[in-house]
Amino acid sequence: MNILEIIAKKRDNKILTKEEINYFIKNYTKGNITDYQAAALIMAIYINGMNYEEITDFTLAMANSGEILDLSELGMVIDKHSTGGIGDKITLILMPIIASLGIPAAKMSGRGLGFTGGTVDKLESIPGYDTNIDIEKFINNVKNIGISLMGQTLNLAPADKKIYALRDTISCVESIPLIASSIMSKKIAAGAEKIVLEVTVGSGAFMKNIEDATELSKTMIGIGNLAKKETVCILTNMNEPIGYSIGNALEVIEAVEALNGKMSEDVKEIVLELGSYMIKLAGKGDNIEKNKELIMENINNKKALQKFKELVKNQGGDVSYIDDTSKFERAKFVLPVVSDKEGYIKSMDNQKIGYISSGLGAGRLKKEDKINNKVGIIINKKIGDKVTSKEILAYIHSDDYEVGIKAVNDLRECFEISDEYIQKQKHILGIIK
Amino acid sequence: MNILEIIAKKRDNKILTKEEINYFIKNYTKGNITDYQAAALIMAIYINGMNYEEITDFTLAMANSGEILDLSELGMVIDKHSTGGIGDKITLILMPIIASLGIPAAKMSGRGLGFTGGTVDKLESIPGYDTNIDIEKFINNVKNIGISLMGQTLNLAPADKKIYALRDTISCVESIPLIASSIMSKKIAAGAEKIVLEVTVGSGAFMKNIEDATELSKTMIGIGNLAKKETVCILTNMNEPIGYSIGNALEVIEAVEALNGKMSEDVKEIVLELGSYMIKLAGKGDNIEKNKELIMENINNKKALQKFKELVKNQGGDVSYIDDTSKFERAKFVLPVVSDKEGYIKSMDNQKIGYISSGLGAGRLKKEDKINNKVGIIINKKIGDKVTSKEILAYIHSDDYEVGIKAVNDLRECFEISDEYIQKQKHILGIIK
Repeated sequence: MNILEIIAKKRDNKILTKEEINYFIKNYTKGNITDYQAAALIMAIYINGMNYEEITDFTLAMANSGEILDLSELGMVIDKHSTGGIGDKITLILMPIIASLGIPAAKMSGRGLGFTGGTVDKLESIPGYDTNIDIEKFINNVKNIGISLMGQTLNLAPADKKIYALRDTISCVESIPLIASSIMSKKIAAGAEKIVLEVTVGSGAFMKNIEDATELSKTMIGIGNLAKKETVCILTNMNEPIGYSIGNALEVIEAVEALNGKMSEDVKEIVLELGSYMIKLAGKGDNIEKNKELIMENINNKKALQKFKELVKNQGGDVSYIDDTSKFERAKFVLPVVSDKEGYIKSMDNQKIGYISSGLGAGRLKKEDKINNKVGIIINKKIGDKVTSKEILAYIHSDDYEVGIKAVNDLRECFEISDEYIQKQKHILGIIK
Repeated sequence: MNILEIIAKKRDNKILTKEEINYFIKNYTKGNITDYQAAALIMAIYINGMNYEEITDFTLAMANSGEILDLSELGMVIDKHSTGGIGDKITLILMPIIASLGIPAAKMSGRGLGFTGGTVDKLESIPGYDTNIDIEKFINNVKNIGISLMGQTLNLAPADKKIYALRDTISCVESIPLIASSIMSKKIAAGAEKIVLEVTVGSGAFMKNIEDATELSKTMIGIGNLAKKETVCILTNMNEPIGYSIGNALEVIEAVEALNGKMSEDVKEIVLELGSYMIKLAGKGDNIEKNKELIMENINNKKALQKFKELVKNQGGDVSYIDDTSKFERAKFVLPVVSDKEGYIKSMDNQKIGYISSGLGAGRLKKEDKINNKVGIIINKKIGDKVTSKEILAYIHSDDYEVGIKAVNDLRECFEISDEYIQKQKHILGIIK
């Protein structure tokens, strides 16, 4: 077996064996196969595809390329993952809810890159919160208080990291077999028993339409089944940001408000849907509508907020910021984005909104970029909302006036305003299991 | 314009513009585009193909990536090129014939690599012959005596060199658009007015069947037309070696014998066919059969041999070796390959024969390998020949006994002997213009 034969096989649209896939992943991770050989194979995979068996072998080979976290001592851990969104603070709201219902909430999260933010960056905007704890502490935290949220400190699926970085430089990101295996390899390595995946669809997501999102979902569920990790996919709308805030501290504030019962309609729908499937997978209730009631109960009685405060305190964070979110330091300039037209918001360029937020300093355009926790965007109007001329569409929170003014003008262009009545967006687009 | 967009376009089977192709070739040659990005694009081209316009743009961009030789002051120069063969000494015989007929013979040749030999290596087995002359001398030689054969000293089509080396490491060699553009870029850069291409077909060639060879030929003719270089392709049989010798000095000896009128049937057919089309393209005779007579005349009256001797003398070679080929130093061991079976030669593993010859030292398996001019193979029996048990199929010429004995056994396995009568092979398989 050698890499030239493996490349030639996939080039000719033949099926790779498990041994060939393992050979490639192992030797590419080790550096025995060059980047240009991997690039040729990845492009052949992009164009000619892989069948379910190949995708599963590819996923497992990547999962096995590094450490595999063992969370079995915690009982039935349910992982939650999103394929990426703008203003996505769902993890911050959902995991304390789950923990408050007695389901172990042990989750490793990533940092933001490109137009999407990362949960770890958001958590770090809480003064003192330590995302960089060791695994023993992580597991002990879950044992003691039922919840821990940390960064990816382990060397999980290093083959995926290397292949993902390569795909980014050779226009091979948007491939369903490659996206599915990338996500699932990390989830398998992260040690959860079962997985709820939020598959985002729309202008601010990798998947631009329901058909592709459905195919991706079915692929990931197929991998999950073969890897004995039951997986449910929930398709959510990413044509507009989730909730109203984008930016690290701004999103923590929105999450705290949500746990205090003040949720925008889309955040509420997504939290209830994902949460009730997590409860179901955990074996704590088969009736989805009943599960949604359980969640609302623990929001209304503040048990979920209490759990979030426990989490923050337990990982060294200053709980007084959660009790009084006005303590979070604000950006120097809060600049309104004023509508120059009357009508209904017809569409939003959500991906561009993500990039504007990153450009303000809320995210990273390159891995090395430093994050500014204070900056970001507050969205006032969403698709279907009526807007009068001179009404405020959004606010830019910026530490630099020039950068802020440019963002104001860029953001205004992200809103398409129509004379005709426009319906509000649906937020849950489908459930695939 | 950026490389990610260009890769994505070809990945999605779209047509690249001239500007995009130029951008890629220019920036890859300069090192601004990485090998892994080039590998991804080349794989996408391999799988999705290129149309005639793209192939021509690709060819011209590669031709223009380095120096372009200007031979216009020599009049109507006709280049001759072969897509690669085993025992291919046709250039050594044909170019003196052409020059003896008053057509300027100015040709740059390459060195051998892999299972095929190179004309420059063969010429250098003549003591004193200098293949490394400068361009001024090259042109002056042609002006003075009508012929010069030299190595590729100029930086012709460096983009092709870089892309060819990459293709070799990513299983992207056997692509008709890429082979056609590689050959034609070098031919265009080498400055000839018109081109006769010998497209080899069979077990010792890139093209394994007539259909592929025909498609390659049509592609190269199409490029030639668009580049205003009239091109004729002659399909020749490469299921067995050309003539009877393989190895540098051994092939020079066979070439001298041919110019003395002693030609094997296949060499004669190929020389007459290619030569008469070169005469036609040069405007020296439209009647192919008549042209063949002109060639035979200049062989029989020794004018072609005389021209070869002039060439050798003019480039510093020792002509006494041409007058008496027994002066060429022989390998230490000449080992017979004896048939262990009676019957007719049904097939020969021609590519393997090429590798055996390279393994003896007659060619290079790696670029850095040193050539041994003395070693090689003399073929006694070809396809369709009757052979009795204990009869000699071939001789191995080796400077090392152990290596020679191994080659004897390997070579025996290259001959497939059948009980049934087998027809002799046809040598000219088609003409495409």
